[in-house]
Amino acid sequence: MRATVLVRPKDGILDPQGQAVESSLRKLGFAVGEARVGRVVDLELDTSDPQEARAQVERMCAELLANPLIESVEIDVEAAS
Amino acid sequence: MRATVLVRPKDGILDPQGQAVESSLRKLGFAVGEARVGRVVDLELDTSDPQEARAQVERMCAELLANPLIESVEIDVEAAS
Repeated sequence: MRATVLVRPKDGILDPQGQAVESSLRKLGFAVGEARVGRVVDLELDTSDPQEARAQVERMCAELLANPLIESVEIDVEAAS
Repeated sequence: MRATVLVRPKDGILDPQGQAVESSLRKLGFAVGEARVGRVVDLELDTSDPQEARAQVERMCAELLANPLIESVEIDVEAAS
């Protein structure tokens, strides 16, 4: 079973990488408002139970993948590909 | 109009960050197969036409956001929030 985790800087948290992207896009002539950059983590999990998979990924986020003080997390669990 | 771009290392391309996540998760006791790490870019666009938005974001990917040789791109265009 596969899971996708999106880790984004929370609103109001400084995001220098996003600011750099925003400014570069404007210099290239694109009319963009804000740009924010985060991480996407794709995981192959051992379990085939979606609920168990989600619980595991939530623990992974708490223990390694994200800093809950400054980052928000979005978890998608998909059927095995 | 908002767009979300997922930029991932292509299959077969070395992903040291993903390998580090994978090995750390295993050391923490999680049974994971492969882990891959990419970027998520959230953009606020000036246009309100979904087709025009997607075309703009495709150009942004080609000019700045991704390296087509080693990265694959997934674009989601959403209604304004």
